[in-house]
Order: sequence, then C-alpha cells, then structure tokens
Amino acid sequence: MRTFIAVDLGGTNIRAAIVDEEGKILDVKKDVTEAHLGKEHVMEKMENLIASLKDYENALGIGLGIPGPTDTVNGKIIISNNLPDLVGYPIADRIREHFKKPTFMANDVKVAGLAEALLGEGRGKKNLYYLTISTGVAGAMILDGKVLSGFHGHGGEIGNMTIDPNREALGGLNRGAAESWVSGPALVREADKACEKEFKHAGEVFEAAKSDARAKAVVERFKDDLAVLLAGVCFVCDPERILIQGGVMKSSSDFLSDVEKRLHGLLFPGMREVTLASATIEEPGLVGAAMLAKSQL
Amino acid sequence: MRTFIAVDLGGTNIRAAIVDEEGKILDVKKDVTEAHLGKEHVMEKMENLIASLKDYENALGIGLGIPGPTDTVNGKIIISNNLPDLVGYPIADRIREHFKKPTFMANDVKVAGLAEALLGEGRGKKNLYYLTISTGVAGAMILDGKVLSGFHGHGGEIGNMTIDPNREALGGLNRGAAESWVSGPALVREADKACEKEFKHAGEVFEAAKSDARAKAVVERFKDDLAVLLAGVCFVCDPERILIQGGVMKSSSDFLSDVEKRLHGLLFPGMREVTLASATIEEPGLVGAAMLAKSQL
Repeated sequence: MRTFIAVDLGGTNIRAAIVDEEGKILDVKKDVTEAHLGKEHVMEKMENLIASLKDYENALGIGLGIPGPTDTVNGKIIISNNLPDLVGYPIADRIREHFKKPTFMANDVKVAGLAEALLGEGRGKKNLYYLTISTGVAGAMILDGKVLSGFHGHGGEIGNMTIDPNREALGGLNRGAAESWVSGPALVREADKACEKEFKHAGEVFEAAKSDARAKAVVERFKDDLAVLLAGVCFVCDPERILIQGGVMKSSSDFLSDVEKRLHGLLFPGMREVTLASATIEEPGLVGAAMLAKSQL
Repeated sequence: MRTFIAVDLGGTNIRAAIVDEEGKILDVKKDVTEAHLGKEHVMEKMENLIASLKDYENALGIGLGIPGPTDTVNGKIIISNNLPDLVGYPIADRIREHFKKPTFMANDVKVAGLAEALLGEGRGKKNLYYLTISTGVAGAMILDGKVLSGFHGHGGEIGNMTIDPNREALGGLNRGAAESWVSGPALVREADKACEKEFKHAGEVFEAAKSDARAKAVVERFKDDLAVLLAGVCFVCDPERILIQGGVMKSSSDFLSDVEKRLHGLLFPGMREVTLASATIEEPGLVGAAMLAKSQL
C-alpha cells in the first residue's frame, strides 16, 4: 500500500508519522518544537524526526500541517504567534529538497478537514464544509477531495465572520464575530455572567442548561448563532454536509440536531438536505497532512 | 476562431447568440418566451432560435444561462417563478441531443460572473467572487476559470445571508438578510422612510445623500452593510478580487471606495489586498453562457 509522510508542526510539539493511503498511522515520532531557538533549529528537528520514521524512504510524498494562515502555493507561513521566526521561510521547499520528495503544506484545520472529508464522515461526498469549534472557530471548504484555501490562504477563517454587528468586538476580532459567540470559551464566559458562577468548560454549561433557565438561555443563543454562521457558509458554497470537530462537540448530543433544524429554517427549501455530522477521525492533523500529499499526487 | 452557442433564457425573452472565444458576439436572435404556453413551446422556440443563428453548425458547444437555482449536473431548473412548467425538465439533455453538441447549463448570475472573470475585470486572476447588486443580490465563486454552484445549485445565494439578525424579515427572506438591506429597492425603501418622500431609484438616493443628512445616514448604513456582507464572503473563500455588477453600480463612484476601505477594516491584515471592481462586460449573460461551454470543453 502507498504511504505518505505527515508532519504536524505545532507551537509546542512537532509530530511526524508514516500514514498509509487508508489513513492508518504506521509509525509516529514526536519532539518539542522549541521555536524560541530559531528556524534552523526547528527545521533540523523536523528533518531528524522524519528521518527517524520507519521506511520513510518509501513514502511517495510529504504533507505538512501548520497552524494559522498558510501560503499553500509557496509553502510558507503567513502569520504566526507561536512560530514567528518561521514566517515567510520556504519550509516546503527545504523539506522537498532535503528528502527529494513532493512536499505540500496547508493550514492544520484544512488538513484535518481533508482527513475527515476523505476518510471520515465525508467519505464519498464531493462538496463538504469542515468546521472546528473549540477555543477558536475556523473552517475549510473541501471540493472534489481538495481543500480550498483562498487567494491569501485565509479562506475558512470564519471565526471572524459577523453574526451580529450589534455585539461587542472581543479579542481583536470584529464586532459580533462568530468566534466570540460560538466557541467553547464564549459559552463559558456568557454562562459565567448569566449564572454568576464559574464554569470549567462548555460541557458544564450544556449540563447546567438542563435545569437552569439562565444557562439554557445562553445555550439557546449559542444554537441560534451557530445556525446563522452555518447558513452564511451554506449561502456562499452550498455544501452537501458540514463536518464539525472540536472540544464543544463532546456535547454534540445537547445541541447538534437543534442547530441542524434551525439551519434548515434559514436556508432555501432546495438546500435543506445539508446535514451536520460530528467528525470521527482520530488524529486528523497527522492523517490529514498525509491526505494533503495524497490529494496532490 | 472557435465559436460557441449561448442561450439566455429569461422569463420574458429568450436570446440566442454565436459568441467567439474572446467574447465577441457574432450573431444574436431574440424571441418572447411565452412560458404560459408550456415547456414544449419554450423548448421549440429555443431550438428554432439556435438554428436561425449564422454558422451555428460550426459552434463547438452550447451554454445555457437560466434564472434561479439550477442543477448544473443534470441540466435542470430547480425552482422558478417565471418558468414553472420547465422546473425539473431535462433542458440541457434535450438541447444536447437535438443539436448533437456538448451542452452545459448554469444560473444566469453565475454565467455572467464567468464572463467577467474570464474576459473582464477578472482576466488573468484565478480566485474571484462576482456579485450582482440590483433588485436582487446574488453571487458566484469563480476558481481557476470555473464557476462553483455548490451541491444543490444554491452556492452564491448570498442575498439571504444574515447581516444583522435584529432587523426584520422581509419578502420571505431571513431576518436582516443582505438583499433586504443592500439591494436597489432596499436603498429606495429606507430613503423614502428617512426623508418622507418618494425616490425613483438608488441613484437618486446617492445624489440626495450629498446634501441631505437623512439620506446620507441611509447610504452610510448601506456601505457598512455591504462591507459586512463582503467580509463574510471573504472569510469563507478569500478571493483576490470581487467583481460587482448591477443597477446600483451606476452610482459606484459614490460608495465603492468607501466600502472597500470598510471591508479591509473587517479583514485580517493578510487579506487586505482584495479589491472591489465594477464589472465591465456588456451582455454578460450571453457572453457568460458561451464561456460556460468554453470552460467545460
């Protein structure tokens, strides 16, 4: 079976793996990133990790998943808080030349979406949207098995889409930005305020909503807001299915079917076949980086 | 030079043309649609119009532009107020078999966008969004010279995107839907209310805004609303340029550069190269239908 090398470059850790074309991880290695020691240090770590993988020589190509906006054409990081020294550095070129293998790079949410689209709940479907609802909110359009990143690599940055221009601007985002209202921290913040107590995570808010009307109001607004966000996505690209991943999805049984109903209510009748599904792939970052290479070869 | 047959099927008129690959219209014929006389009548009219075009036998393919949501894969109309008898009828199949030529069909806004993307202000650019702001508001994503219509053919129906969920639901659309606030009729409606008089069209509203603070407030909100709508589009698909067509664009010098500035203010720094441009192609419906055939061959 054909195999690919996957790299998940994070601010804290770098992981590299050998993944087969069905998404099975055959070997995986991890090291700390130590980005403060500079780009040469990080690049050498990445090269050493890849070279330590079993049978890496036989892999057909290399996929790199990178946090933040990514120039997929030139294989460079555009902006990064965690890896500032690597911004603009030709990461993909260097890895390609070092290993003499076709090398591709994309944003980590986008490669995770690709994994779910090709091997998870999107398998067999051609027109998908993938969404992560966690600390942040971001997405990716996956058409015909390829992930679209837009002209500047920012396609899918829907966390900054306005869902209500009358609400505050928080954390450097736009007024009423999606991420400020439908992320895990947003749910906790709003529930803390409404219930005058401290929730640990979004799961506790969904639990409280079963008996506390104030928490329920927060959850109901979250559902409305998420439906508006997803409707916006549907009006632009009209997917067959929306795949959702992220910490908030641990409580998906408490909100997902309601959000789907409200989404359908916002769409034209002909669009209401669109379904929402929880993402199911474990290790979507690594599997997706491998699928990025596969999808381009 | 290669030529293509273009058909613009409207509720009032059908037009057919021979168009060369540079978008030059070599021959054009027009007839009334008379949709009330049934689908067989309309189909025969269309066939006769095509057969009356000079050198139609030499055309390489046929492109059909159709109002409303269109099933581009099966070449059928999904919903139509003006052509109800043709909904679900295999229009493209019938034309293909009748003329023995490859035949393709898409929504009229989408084919117009394709014309502008390939031959107008989008020429040479790969990642474009096309928008019409007229009585209605609708759009189309054009990637690598192909127009994307989504799974149900509703991709680009951004007139129903929520720009402010606190505003009314008008004309069967969602609460605060874009079309209810950034279309020509919306500008007139809001200016009539604010100024207690009757404006004839959007152009008069822009003119009044130069001396009347109440009309100016309406225009300023229009600019904000349009910027929010366009930012939503950018966060989903991050185009290089947005091409705008439609009646409201007659007054583009009164608002377009302000909207671009406000749009940039809503985007992440890396996305701010996106530009707004007035569409320039005359007869985008016919030229676009020909380009649809060209783009698929």
